[in-house]
Amino acid sequence: MKSPRLTAASLKQYFPILDWMKTYDRDTATSDIVAAVIVTIMLIPQSLAYALLAGLPAEMGLYASIAPLMMYAIFGTSRALAVGPVAVVSLMTAAAIGNLGLTDPMQIALAAGTLAFISGAMLTVMGVFKLGFLANFLSHPVIAGFITASGVLIAMSQLKHIFGIEAGGHTIIHLIESLLEHQEQTNIITMFIGFSAVGFLFWVRKGLKPLLMSFGLSPRMADIGAKAGPVAAVVVTVLATWIFGLNDKGVKIVGEVPMGLPPITMPSLSPDLWSELFMSALLISIIGFVESVSVAQTLAAKRRQRISPDQELIGLGMSNVGSSLSGGFPVTGGFSRSVVNFDAGAVTPAAGAFTAVGILIATLLLTPLLYFLPKATLAATIIVAVLSLVDFSILTKAWGYSKVDFAAVAATIFLTLGFGVEVGVSAGVLLSIGLHLYHTSRPHVAEVGLVPGTQHFRNIHRHKVETHPELVTLRVDEALYFANARFLEDYVLNRVTCDEPLKHVVLMCPAVNEIDMSALEALEELNRRLEEMGITLHMSEVKGPVMDRLQRSHFLHELTGEVFLSQYDAWAKLTQADLRAAS
Amino acid sequence: MKSPRLTAASLKQYFPILDWMKTYDRDTATSDIVAAVIVTIMLIPQSLAYALLAGLPAEMGLYASIAPLMMYAIFGTSRALAVGPVAVVSLMTAAAIGNLGLTDPMQIALAAGTLAFISGAMLTVMGVFKLGFLANFLSHPVIAGFITASGVLIAMSQLKHIFGIEAGGHTIIHLIESLLEHQEQTNIITMFIGFSAVGFLFWVRKGLKPLLMSFGLSPRMADIGAKAGPVAAVVVTVLATWIFGLNDKGVKIVGEVPMGLPPITMPSLSPDLWSELFMSALLISIIGFVESVSVAQTLAAKRRQRISPDQELIGLGMSNVGSSLSGGFPVTGGFSRSVVNFDAGAVTPAAGAFTAVGILIATLLLTPLLYFLPKATLAATIIVAVLSLVDFSILTKAWGYSKVDFAAVAATIFLTLGFGVEVGVSAGVLLSIGLHLYHTSRPHVAEVGLVPGTQHFRNIHRHKVETHPELVTLRVDEALYFANARFLEDYVLNRVTCDEPLKHVVLMCPAVNEIDMSALEALEELNRRLEEMGITLHMSEVKGPVMDRLQRSHFLHELTGEVFLSQYDAWAKLTQADLRAAS
Repeated sequence: MKSPRLTAASLKQYFPILDWMKTYDRDTATSDIVAAVIVTIMLIPQSLAYALLAGLPAEMGLYASIAPLMMYAIFGTSRALAVGPVAVVSLMTAAAIGNLGLTDPMQIALAAGTLAFISGAMLTVMGVFKLGFLANFLSHPVIAGFITASGVLIAMSQLKHIFGIEAGGHTIIHLIESLLEHQEQTNIITMFIGFSAVGFLFWVRKGLKPLLMSFGLSPRMADIGAKAGPVAAVVVTVLATWIFGLNDKGVKIVGEVPMGLPPITMPSLSPDLWSELFMSALLISIIGFVESVSVAQTLAAKRRQRISPDQELIGLGMSNVGSSLSGGFPVTGGFSRSVVNFDAGAVTPAAGAFTAVGILIATLLLTPLLYFLPKATLAATIIVAVLSLVDFSILTKAWGYSKVDFAAVAATIFLTLGFGVEVGVSAGVLLSIGLHLYHTSRPHVAEVGLVPGTQHFRNIHRHKVETHPELVTLRVDEALYFANARFLEDYVLNRVTCDEPLKHVVLMCPAVNEIDMSALEALEELNRRLEEMGITLHMSEVKGPVMDRLQRSHFLHELTGEVFLSQYDAWAKLTQADLRAAS
Repeated sequence: MKSPRLTAASLKQYFPILDWMKTYDRDTATSDIVAAVIVTIMLIPQSLAYALLAGLPAEMGLYASIAPLMMYAIFGTSRALAVGPVAVVSLMTAAAIGNLGLTDPMQIALAAGTLAFISGAMLTVMGVFKLGFLANFLSHPVIAGFITASGVLIAMSQLKHIFGIEAGGHTIIHLIESLLEHQEQTNIITMFIGFSAVGFLFWVRKGLKPLLMSFGLSPRMADIGAKAGPVAAVVVTVLATWIFGLNDKGVKIVGEVPMGLPPITMPSLSPDLWSELFMSALLISIIGFVESVSVAQTLAAKRRQRISPDQELIGLGMSNVGSSLSGGFPVTGGFSRSVVNFDAGAVTPAAGAFTAVGILIATLLLTPLLYFLPKATLAATIIVAVLSLVDFSILTKAWGYSKVDFAAVAATIFLTLGFGVEVGVSAGVLLSIGLHLYHTSRPHVAEVGLVPGTQHFRNIHRHKVETHPELVTLRVDEALYFANARFLEDYVLNRVTCDEPLKHVVLMCPAVNEIDMSALEALEELNRRLEEMGITLHMSEVKGPVMDRLQRSHFLHELTGEVFLSQYDAWAKLTQADLRAAS
């Protein structure tokens, strides 16, 4: 911190805590503590459940909800984001670790911590190098499709706990096969607990809020109260299991959860493990960041605050590093808990730190109470939580708007369900980029004419416009770059070969946002070929940045025609004075 | 061929031979045969040399110059293209087979044939599905950089034959290390032959043509005569080696070349081998296609002919399949031999078939004469041929035009030299695409005003224009899609927060070639946020295809402002009647 280049401003940039801490007072603290208590109550069953979803011991969920929250309070820029284990990232963790084929629980926990460390390091590095824009390459429809398909996979993966059977799988086919294969193991009592919990939790979502409001609670408090539903389910099923000794009747319980401070853990430094986890860590980082930053932006906008996406990368990165060093697994900012935190009145990231203290107290004191907690209850909370993520309407929405977007969504959903989360999201990204490139490699080219009485030029097939037999004006609706350079050359040459009296071709370039070297060479070639045919090539409405670059090449000297500031100038000059007089 | 859907037109499309065969007559045949004789003479040493470069027995070079030429004559659309083994593809073949770590010559030959088969199948399938546009994703600068770096690697790889030592390596570092390591093996006689041959061949390039012209040959024939230089080098060094028994003095010779027809060979069907060769075959296919199609287009343009890139894929694909079934290895259309073919007067692809007959006769009769051919002579022909491909000026050209293109070229050259051809070309493609996406993810946005006395709007920072305090017009110079959706939202919101009296924002969209679903959602969000600030959002000059799509969404109902046909309409209406009167 003694580097002379670290000014106060850059310190504040990397440690947003220095900014909000200055004005921190008793009132703010009170608001934050109230929010923290509510979030803590909500987070305890969630943390346990997501650890279970990730295939890890329940206590790791609690550990992952302590240090990461502290780190985010120091490095994060969102005032209301609550980080910790979340459904999709936990599922991706399960898939990543599943790939390794480990059986020793110690090895599995080590791999999970290492995954968090790699992911944390990646996010931090991306933040320092301001690579937050990379997340933009996940298109909205791909994210929506991925989240929906993940929700289905997560819900399916939890059915085994509801039925009380041993099953597995990371794809829809394997999950169903495995469930059918083990169906005779079904434990009726477990099933009863599971279905009751699911039913209760669904009712809580819809019915508890009106009930609480009828008891006089404000809508906001009623909403928060409804979010505590899972806690009620936990309490009731723990008591039932304990009183009736259901664990001796085949109901699987969480069992011994170690009491005490989170352990200090070190990630594995094995290069083999790192290279095996690398791609998974990258996907987890990107998905986690996208999910988190969109929650943070939504909440910030409601209070007219702004977040810094690049600093968010650092905040999430350090949270994951913190998780890996304290017995946790990959974390990110979660939607429902952040909304609860926001609604409960959290004003600064300190609310997160207070929540961490709350979970720490729970870890120190409450874990014996969780001994009799049925796994079916946790599974029920996961199922109800993730089914709210499932929304297939994105398919119809995308179909109506654009077939390209539809293809990306449909492929993402299909591949995620059929081949697992990692294949699904990778394919979604590649498909988004691939379809975009395909689209731009065959650009829309419109032949335009003058809209009578104006200086405006539009498509001759869509509007009533004036044209001139010796002049053809082609408006290219795309940046010219390597992927479409040859297309344009072919298009223009095909167009001009059918018109006899043609003397001038004008390329109207208001939409040409770039001309790269490949396209420049194609234009030079086009100019030469048209010259051989006795046709002059002109350009109009070339944009400033594109023109700057053309002026650095030889092209403008070779060009047989002119570059006109506006298409109207080109029209006026090339169609001669008779038309100019008429307009 | 009995399918009712195969009309005569589609038959001609897939078998271009049916088209030109109809008008084939004695004159045409004479021209073709003359060209074939010349190309045959040139091709014999080249074929042997490129087989050597690919790390294969010399006779495979001859085999790869027979069946492929026949196949291309049937399926190809270029009248002058000469297919066969070429330098870059041979180097890539060597790299691909080197990856397998084989030592048995039979296995190596099998792998080379299998590589040709896979590559041929890929090209044919791409042709049938009209995927020729995929080649566009190799930008011109990347190709130029790749060819230059490959030329350096090829020349370096041949130095071992010039010095008469055993060395290897597929990267510049390994090649130099290996040469230094084995330098004490250097054979002085070999070195003398090698350097003499290189010197002679360089002289032939520059000096032989004027000499032949002074003997009264036409410039064209003198040019062709100069191309026969390698044959002279072969004859002289064979005689010298035979007469002085140089092979007993340590000069490495080609040795026994089997005499007779090319063998009928089958590619391996081992799935392991196929999966190991898959990526290499893909890269070879793409590079081979790009090289070949650009030669074919250049030559076709000179005679006002056109080629069909998709049918070219089929032509090259079938050539490679032919090569794999007759003891050859991957082939493509070569630059220098096609130019010779063209200059020597080849009129139809039949010239290629006649060349194949020429090489076949050579294989049947001349192979004993090649016994004493020093490998140093072949290495010299390769070195002189590839050094004409090396052109580092692409670096300065790209630097002057665009830093993005420069980065792509520099990385391609550096990675090809440092990590071999496969890494180099893959990185070049990914980098071209990545840099393009990065560029479009941060689009240029210009604030525009009215150019006085016109209806034309330009950048307020570049032109003297009229503006209005209540109105800001932003011209977005990029298609709006997932990679830049959030950027636009942020940009507009940042722009409007600093202007107090602002009432209207107009997005001027002549350059917006696409609005995908992600961008649509961003626009909806922007519209909502601006509405909260009391600012109306308008759009102008939205293109037909983009408008069609917007009309299928809810956005136009939600939009607080209007969509104007022209920016001038927007200006006229929004700045009120007083300004309208003035204009």
